[in-house]
Amino acid sequence: MIDGLEIRPVRGIGDVTPGDDLVELIASAAPWLADGDVLVVTSKIVSKSEGRLVEVPADGPERDAARAAVLVSETRRVVARRGPTTIVQTHHGFVMAAAGIDASNVDKTHLVLLPADPDASARRLRDGFLARGLEVAVIISDTMGRTWRNGLTDVALGAAGIDPFRDHRGETDPYGNELQITQMAVIDELAAAGELVKGKSDQVPVAVVRGFRSAAPATTGAAALLRDAASDMFSLGTAEARATGLLEAAQLSEGSETHLPGLPVDPEAIERALAAVADVLSRTTTVAQAEVLPHNGATAALHLAARDTDPPSLMRLGADAHRLRAALAAESIASVVLPHEDGIRLGLSGLSPAPTP
Amino acid sequence: MIDGLEIRPVRGIGDVTPGDDLVELIASAAPWLADGDVLVVTSKIVSKSEGRLVEVPADGPERDAARAAVLVSETRRVVARRGPTTIVQTHHGFVMAAAGIDASNVDKTHLVLLPADPDASARRLRDGFLARGLEVAVIISDTMGRTWRNGLTDVALGAAGIDPFRDHRGETDPYGNELQITQMAVIDELAAAGELVKGKSDQVPVAVVRGFRSAAPATTGAAALLRDAASDMFSLGTAEARATGLLEAAQLSEGSETHLPGLPVDPEAIERALAAVADVLSRTTTVAQAEVLPHNGATAALHLAARDTDPPSLMRLGADAHRLRAALAAESIASVVLPHEDGIRLGLSGLSPAPTP
Repeated sequence: MIDGLEIRPVRGIGDVTPGDDLVELIASAAPWLADGDVLVVTSKIVSKSEGRLVEVPADGPERDAARAAVLVSETRRVVARRGPTTIVQTHHGFVMAAAGIDASNVDKTHLVLLPADPDASARRLRDGFLARGLEVAVIISDTMGRTWRNGLTDVALGAAGIDPFRDHRGETDPYGNELQITQMAVIDELAAAGELVKGKSDQVPVAVVRGFRSAAPATTGAAALLRDAASDMFSLGTAEARATGLLEAAQLSEGSETHLPGLPVDPEAIERALAAVADVLSRTTTVAQAEVLPHNGATAALHLAARDTDPPSLMRLGADAHRLRAALAAESIASVVLPHEDGIRLGLSGLSPAPTP
Repeated sequence: MIDGLEIRPVRGIGDVTPGDDLVELIASAAPWLADGDVLVVTSKIVSKSEGRLVEVPADGPERDAARAAVLVSETRRVVARRGPTTIVQTHHGFVMAAAGIDASNVDKTHLVLLPADPDASARRLRDGFLARGLEVAVIISDTMGRTWRNGLTDVALGAAGIDPFRDHRGETDPYGNELQITQMAVIDELAAAGELVKGKSDQVPVAVVRGFRSAAPATTGAAALLRDAASDMFSLGTAEARATGLLEAAQLSEGSETHLPGLPVDPEAIERALAAVADVLSRTTTVAQAEVLPHNGATAALHLAARDTDPPSLMRLGADAHRLRAALAAESIASVVLPHEDGIRLGLSGLSPAPTP
């Protein structure tokens, strides 16, 4: 049970340069620090003290080129691009615009990278305070954009000495309902709270939260907040994922029945796929259900035929079969193509539970 | 310049029922409220006082069906689905799991909906305090998941008497760099800070932040934080957007050259599309650049032909042309089909700057 929090800015830290002892700087600027305090430290000064700086030209196209090269080297994968904005997943696993590379609060010939291992940075700071007899928790914070909401907020890149989550699992409310909301990302909320007293250009790189009690001993750092791409429903930008679908349609090969997994196909899903292409199929193309051969991996089949056998009708038949295959793929139905003299037979199968791209 | 914040829980509000006067309840529980305080009020008690409750069966499949029906009625559009999770955009514009419908902290025969207009609710509360001679800001908060990060945080659904943003535009840092980070979503950070003293089941539905000064007079509410789907790079889940791409490929009609916008096509983009399908084209299909007729909307053209003219080769040619069209679409190149006796001609054009689906 928390009886209230105090959030204080730490002023007077001044400019931080590589090799500076941050613990010394913070402790001098905040002699009032006490056991149990949570320090929210802007990642910028951590990066600078750790020498995470890259030299770049001060201006011109050379600067743009150097900056682009740094972005590539900090990027694990591109998540989304639009105009000048590139959102990437960094090697740490953070999804951030421009990989968190920053040109503010540093002279014009340098860029500041994120700390190489923010959880390790947080542990080092915490250990430094412990060595001075002070038991504090440390959060390394940075500013991030969010999906769906305008404006930015600060979140935790690294943490030490504090449980990243408050876990409500197993709790019941006064009505006896078991709580559905399980894990609150308290270190992100603390980073956001700290930002309220920091501001961007007024040289307040540290905030102290007093009165917060971690719900459980810290067992992990802020890396526990990173959701891997496979578990995330938004691992790619909408435009990028749409292009993935188009490219997947482009690359549907004829395939072979032996590659089909032999899983059942929902007849309603076939109907939906047929309905999706009904308006674009050629008037000379007909589609009908077909028999499934007992010795292959298809569990359903369709037969496409052309009413006329002139070359344009046959070419249209081929395109129509491919349209239908793309629509089936959108319904998670795998298909293979068996061309016959009298048309095209599609062997169909359900897919095994799909990993997200 | 902020000299520190205090965040206090408001206890003793007790159970809230429809028609309750929240201003009275909060003012009685927190007689220490002062001018300039920011009240962070959990949306749940706002909804309950406003009677935003729906009666549902206490259990069984009837409850599930009723709950599903409520979700549909609260949904403007489905953003993403996976397993039991449905993320939707509500009629307000919030993107939330299950439209923010909640079954906790309410008896088992009711569900709690979000307030109908959280900004209006915030204004009503603020006006109620003003009528008592107290000038406070009000934030209506709720808990949301985020993309890419585990754990939940509280954000602002509604606000009154406070600028939603702190705007750094035009500021320069001590090195003379103009600040890139423009707008901090301070009302979301305040909601997060408030959550730290609230907790989920311990009946602390209000937190008070003291010491925060809004950077500018409030001109809008929390609705200013809503990013519309067209401006958002993540308007759809990855799986949903991929299916959109597949479906788009399925629905590429032959089209007509008169519909092409006549915009230039990047030759490198054509090369990338050709490379993307190189491994799946039939061995009997050939592709070559073709002449553009001067009187149509195509600014580039490709000609596909079959080496053999037997029906299977012609059908494969049709499918290959469609594969290539899907790959071109993935590169934002529009195409139309002109079948000839001796093959298929694709007329190409760039697209006008594309709105995101």
